[in-house]
Amino acid sequence: MSSNRAVAYQGPGKVEVVEIDYPTFELKDGPGVNPANVGRQLPHAAILKVVTTNICGSDQHMVRGRTTAPEGLILGHEITGEVVETGPGVEFIREGDLVSVPFNISCGRCANCKKQRTEICLNVNPDRPGSAYGYVDMGGWVGGQAEYALVPYADWNLLKFPDKDQALEKILDLTMLSDIFPTGFHGAVTAGVKPGSSVYIAGAGPVGTAAAVGSQLLGAAVVIVADMNADRLANARKFGCETIDVSEEDPREGIARILGREEVDAGVDAVGFEAKGHGRDAGEAPATVLNTLMNVTEAGGALGIPGLYVTGDPGGVDEAAQEGSLSLRLGLGWAKALSFTTGQCPVMKYNRQLMEAILHEKVHIADAVSATPISLDDAPRGYAEFDAGVAEKFVIDPHNTTGKVK
Amino acid sequence: MSSNRAVAYQGPGKVEVVEIDYPTFELKDGPGVNPANVGRQLPHAAILKVVTTNICGSDQHMVRGRTTAPEGLILGHEITGEVVETGPGVEFIREGDLVSVPFNISCGRCANCKKQRTEICLNVNPDRPGSAYGYVDMGGWVGGQAEYALVPYADWNLLKFPDKDQALEKILDLTMLSDIFPTGFHGAVTAGVKPGSSVYIAGAGPVGTAAAVGSQLLGAAVVIVADMNADRLANARKFGCETIDVSEEDPREGIARILGREEVDAGVDAVGFEAKGHGRDAGEAPATVLNTLMNVTEAGGALGIPGLYVTGDPGGVDEAAQEGSLSLRLGLGWAKALSFTTGQCPVMKYNRQLMEAILHEKVHIADAVSATPISLDDAPRGYAEFDAGVAEKFVIDPHNTTGKVK
Amino acid sequence: MSSNRAVAYQGPGKVEVVEIDYPTFELKDGPGVNPANVGRQLPHAAILKVVTTNICGSDQHMVRGRTTAPEGLILGHEITGEVVETGPGVEFIREGDLVSVPFNISCGRCANCKKQRTEICLNVNPDRPGSAYGYVDMGGWVGGQAEYALVPYADWNLLKFPDKDQALEKILDLTMLSDIFPTGFHGAVTAGVKPGSSVYIAGAGPVGTAAAVGSQLLGAAVVIVADMNADRLANARKFGCETIDVSEEDPREGIARILGREEVDAGVDAVGFEAKGHGRDAGEAPATVLNTLMNVTEAGGALGIPGLYVTGDPGGVDEAAQEGSLSLRLGLGWAKALSFTTGQCPVMKYNRQLMEAILHEKVHIADAVSATPISLDDAPRGYAEFDAGVAEKFVIDPHNTTGKVK
Amino acid sequence: MSSNRAVAYQGPGKVEVVEIDYPTFELKDGPGVNPANVGRQLPHAAILKVVTTNICGSDQHMVRGRTTAPEGLILGHEITGEVVETGPGVEFIREGDLVSVPFNISCGRCANCKKQRTEICLNVNPDRPGSAYGYVDMGGWVGGQAEYALVPYADWNLLKFPDKDQALEKILDLTMLSDIFPTGFHGAVTAGVKPGSSVYIAGAGPVGTAAAVGSQLLGAAVVIVADMNADRLANARKFGCETIDVSEEDPREGIARILGREEVDAGVDAVGFEAKGHGRDAGEAPATVLNTLMNVTEAGGALGIPGLYVTGDPGGVDEAAQEGSLSLRLGLGWAKALSFTTGQCPVMKYNRQLMEAILHEKVHIADAVSATPISLDDAPRGYAEFDAGVAEKFVIDPHNTTGKVK
Repeated sequence: MSSNRAVAYQGPGKVEVVEIDYPTFELKDGPGVNPANVGRQLPHAAILKVVTTNICGSDQHMVRGRTTAPEGLILGHEITGEVVETGPGVEFIREGDLVSVPFNISCGRCANCKKQRTEICLNVNPDRPGSAYGYVDMGGWVGGQAEYALVPYADWNLLKFPDKDQALEKILDLTMLSDIFPTGFHGAVTAGVKPGSSVYIAGAGPVGTAAAVGSQLLGAAVVIVADMNADRLANARKFGCETIDVSEEDPREGIARILGREEVDAGVDAVGFEAKGHGRDAGEAPATVLNTLMNVTEAGGALGIPGLYVTGDPGGVDEAAQEGSLSLRLGLGWAKALSFTTGQCPVMKYNRQLMEAILHEKVHIADAVSATPISLDDAPRGYAEFDAGVAEKFVIDPHNTTGKVK
Repeated sequence: MSSNRAVAYQGPGKVEVVEIDYPTFELKDGPGVNPANVGRQLPHAAILKVVTTNICGSDQHMVRGRTTAPEGLILGHEITGEVVETGPGVEFIREGDLVSVPFNISCGRCANCKKQRTEICLNVNPDRPGSAYGYVDMGGWVGGQAEYALVPYADWNLLKFPDKDQALEKILDLTMLSDIFPTGFHGAVTAGVKPGSSVYIAGAGPVGTAAAVGSQLLGAAVVIVADMNADRLANARKFGCETIDVSEEDPREGIARILGREEVDAGVDAVGFEAKGHGRDAGEAPATVLNTLMNVTEAGGALGIPGLYVTGDPGGVDEAAQEGSLSLRLGLGWAKALSFTTGQCPVMKYNRQLMEAILHEKVHIADAVSATPISLDDAPRGYAEFDAGVAEKFVIDPHNTTGKVK
Repeated sequence: MSSNRAVAYQGPGKVEVVEIDYPTFELKDGPGVNPANVGRQLPHAAILKVVTTNICGSDQHMVRGRTTAPEGLILGHEITGEVVETGPGVEFIREGDLVSVPFNISCGRCANCKKQRTEICLNVNPDRPGSAYGYVDMGGWVGGQAEYALVPYADWNLLKFPDKDQALEKILDLTMLSDIFPTGFHGAVTAGVKPGSSVYIAGAGPVGTAAAVGSQLLGAAVVIVADMNADRLANARKFGCETIDVSEEDPREGIARILGREEVDAGVDAVGFEAKGHGRDAGEAPATVLNTLMNVTEAGGALGIPGLYVTGDPGGVDEAAQEGSLSLRLGLGWAKALSFTTGQCPVMKYNRQLMEAILHEKVHIADAVSATPISLDDAPRGYAEFDAGVAEKFVIDPHNTTGKVK
Repeated sequence: MSSNRAVAYQGPGKVEVVEIDYPTFELKDGPGVNPANVGRQLPHAAILKVVTTNICGSDQHMVRGRTTAPEGLILGHEITGEVVETGPGVEFIREGDLVSVPFNISCGRCANCKKQRTEICLNVNPDRPGSAYGYVDMGGWVGGQAEYALVPYADWNLLKFPDKDQALEKILDLTMLSDIFPTGFHGAVTAGVKPGSSVYIAGAGPVGTAAAVGSQLLGAAVVIVADMNADRLANARKFGCETIDVSEEDPREGIARILGREEVDAGVDAVGFEAKGHGRDAGEAPATVLNTLMNVTEAGGALGIPGLYVTGDPGGVDEAAQEGSLSLRLGLGWAKALSFTTGQCPVMKYNRQLMEAILHEKVHIADAVSATPISLDDAPRGYAEFDAGVAEKFVIDPHNTTGKVK
């Protein structure tokens, strides 16, 4: 049996690379594993040699100590890999396949999976509908920032790339299919973006950037990205977005400068619960983004909300925030007849079509998010730099498959 | 020229029948008329002899003094009538037609009307998109609780009943097409109700009742109506609904008693911003209904929110409420991947099909809401009794066309 | 190992009850089994003790000799049963579960299953997308008109009834979930039937009847069923449909008599390729139904086409019919801007919600189609009577579970 | 009163520029005017000074003598112009506005207009739902290939460009909004094209080209255009399409060459009833295109059919074709569970969003179709060259507003 190494959360602000068990076709006890999942048999699973596994903004919530994640939790839910072994119940996926793993774990057997709502699968997380790899309160599936990772229900979950060589050439784009590209795209779709739309995207991190690229792919006429991080805004301008620095400019005024009117057709929240207020030196103000979106989206519009909001946030700014409550100007939203879509992106709904767009070079998501390959050992540095706000998306490449790891 | 009498708001808690001008094809100055609308020419309008005009729960917000409505404002936005005169620009509507008037006034010429979003018409209200008859901050269109009323853009706005005699026989059903039947139906539609659904409807007033009837028409398997008013709940049981008295029973427990599980597929808010907390002697708690709906609707569900939320409420329980802000458990909603649809119902989207359902006796909305015809002079009593919570929907019949007014 | 008996096609006009093997977790060679499927391992399958299994109109196409079905083919794709054994790869379905089997066999792993298009599953039929039990050119899955039947991909395919006793009480309704109720409902849905619609359904056999019940459940205001069989039309009137006997009355005239106008909102083809011309003594005329539907459906309407059309029909009336070509008045359809939806119903998309509607007594599909339980040995008689046009739906009950078999 | 000159159909193969009346606010008798429309008062109309008016492939059907169009019929339904006068019933459109005219004439008052189905307006054509300028059997509205043209229901029909100078700079793109760009886009939308799709477009004329551009705007990964005209195929390759010359290559083989599989996700028919068979020297074979599309579109796909099919074609190849009947392989389509959308494009549903895409330079439709401005006097030459198959879209510019007319 091979050895295995992985990235672990070791307490607030601290991640380390540690030795862990090589995967087997059973979910064993460990940090964060739900007792009801311990010992679960996984004949339907596949073991992957991880090719790329990205650091995600939602990992940062745990690393910053804003959750109840236990020390020792293995991180990572953005996984692309090569199948090295399959369980006896796997029929269509084969050893050697190069595959993308949707970050939502789903069973492919429950009522929700049957209607393409894999983000709220009923059979993988004993606590609530929906799950993910390497995440607190998600059932305890081992994270994929590792040399080897296990994917349950492999025939259902895995998206096989049709041509391995072609896929390896575009691997820095394809690695975004496991989470952020579909997540940003879902934000744009649920915001009603279509050919000719104007869209305001709050947040210029990787998900906001993916929402911008997704909006362009959907035919948006004008994509406006707002943030307070100058580097990230500069990055957004590189691929054709308009930008608003909300530490300097009022969002409605910024929109008016760009469009000649103060409102857009569609709004995307790519920030979530750790939002800050606008203006210089603004503190955390979790309702800011949603209230701004209601303000800048025209009557009849829709808000796509892929940014994460949580049911409990021990580090929240006040009691309401600590239980996931926000003071929202719903009266304004109602008067404008807005609609709102929340929740995880059901990755499987979009990953195949976005793969086709990548393979036929209609989008260049790796460039847009500044995908930066790093070694597994460099993961702690990646976490720190990402948390500091660099305009890069770190892609851990544990075996230097890309050949680009320094 | 004929005389005209109408129901006027005369200050908090006070409505009176007053003499007003007979309509002309110009919008004249008066209480609540937006200056930009004064003198507006209306060659496209029709004058109706009012057959029925209902008292609506949203009128009560004004009458209770919860808005900035000026004294003298003529009330009434639920209008059914016979055309007695048409302006020179009217081509298809004819004198003698019996018609239903959507409470949303719309122009039939703007970008929103062209996409069936008549609730946010851009050309009728100088203050914001969307308008209604006899309502504060809606441009100043004269209310229809009167003997005669004027409807602009008559060819666009009016729904003609195909057979006048047949329509007069069902007039107490058809009068609900101007507002509450489409509004309740819209709540059910946007909550995703479909054949086989279970739905929880907060509020057993006329809109909640209409949402229940609408849910049944959409094929719902189980319709649960919740309220604290025993009479209204008894009324809901009469036409096949299950009920929960939230002053006595926890909503999740009530659902479990009925369904054997604690959550429903779909949720409708037919209460709005004057919501009270649950339990005995609960005070006003504007976020209660929405937070309850997020709690009782299963992951992946949708909330239809036809209940009115306002941008400003001088009588709100606290500063947040006064500006229309609510403390919502959005973290919970997000974890369950819920979606939310707010705003006025675009009546024209539904009134024709619901008319067909009434004319072919597939629904009996008048019975469900206990439609009660009253004379124009009895309107003040109707307001008072409705405000006190009787399980009736008062239908003002100024000319005793129904022959049922005592 | 138990013995097993089943209904076999034995040549044109001939069906017999024969001894067959008890199912095992392997697809063995036999009449109609595709060579590529021989020996296929099925650890994901469940073996059912068949509770009810219905005779379907599409079985008749084979029995009449209108297909290339081989002698010895075991018939039956409408199956409800109790699980008596599960393969090692089955995780959620348990022995003792009472379940409905969608007639479309699907894998729950391919791109089409992932988007709820189970009627065109890519992994079960080597010849083309899509499959069914006991049907020619569908891969060779053994039919279910038998004492025991095997269902592959059991966790994915089976719909478990939540309460076994309750389900047994309503088993004659629930047995229609395997095919005709979803199929008729799909016809109504794809025809755009919604609250208030008028709909014309061509064909008053079981699928047409199910389309009528489905239309009522969707809130249709007027459901018109057309056929040439007086008994079937009388049956349709029993549950509230209007009817047109097309051997006696022109369809547009019949509609005008019922609606006061000559066209309906929506049209459903519940007949398919063995259609006859209209009028007395009309012969087979495969395009009649579709051309009539284009004629009677108003501009902007949609046609739902669940009736079966085939790629090859050796018994077709002419060369075109023999290759599945029809002379359609598409010019008329185009001028009216009609849309058309063809194909098998993806049963899994609808069976859960229709189950809820049955269990909560919103529909009584068994009464509507005159479900008639018969013994396995009586199956040949059932085929003959159904072919002769009796207004009954025969439900084979091999173990007399209903207690209603004489 | 000004004079007016226009392009008239003068018999098979013959078009001429003739003197006609300057428009007034009444529909006067003339060639092709429906008697029921003679004398119709049009206070809601606007008179346009025509800026650009394009020659359309569907005009050619009349000019080739394939319809019952009378001599003297004024041609032209693709109109862009400047408002020079408005009737007394026009409220929002003003003199001086630069506007696009949807080729479908619609009233903005009927049940179909209210649901955005302007292509089947009930009030403009006494013969059937739906109308167009300058077209046989469409009510007799005077064509717009003229110096001045009249547009009824101007507030409803006209799309005003927000900035006149900006619009004049892009006028060769914007002129395509009156018909072919929305029409091609509608074909792509109804074929289900979305990000990542592969699409096969039959026909490389202007509508096919617009469908290709529309598919790209919708995010298609691969757009394949098929035709027998080498120039038009070369043109399609210029803006990134793949092409198949169906006189040389079998469509499935061509698709396999391009995609590595024989079928596409989506199919568009941009040819219509004058289709020819495939292969060298093929004659007219009206069902060829639709049968090919059913053959090359994968199971579960959709066909968008903007290509015109007619109810009567005196010049059809056989009796069936003469009444608009086609021998379609519906059995094949059914087995693949395909859906089909026919009819005129409801231009108003798309023209605003496509205008935004043009104004923000997301599409360059004029380049794609090789827009070529010509003078009014050169219209006869334009008709002749277009009929001969040149890969150009002729834009008549009667007042040389573009300054590009030689």
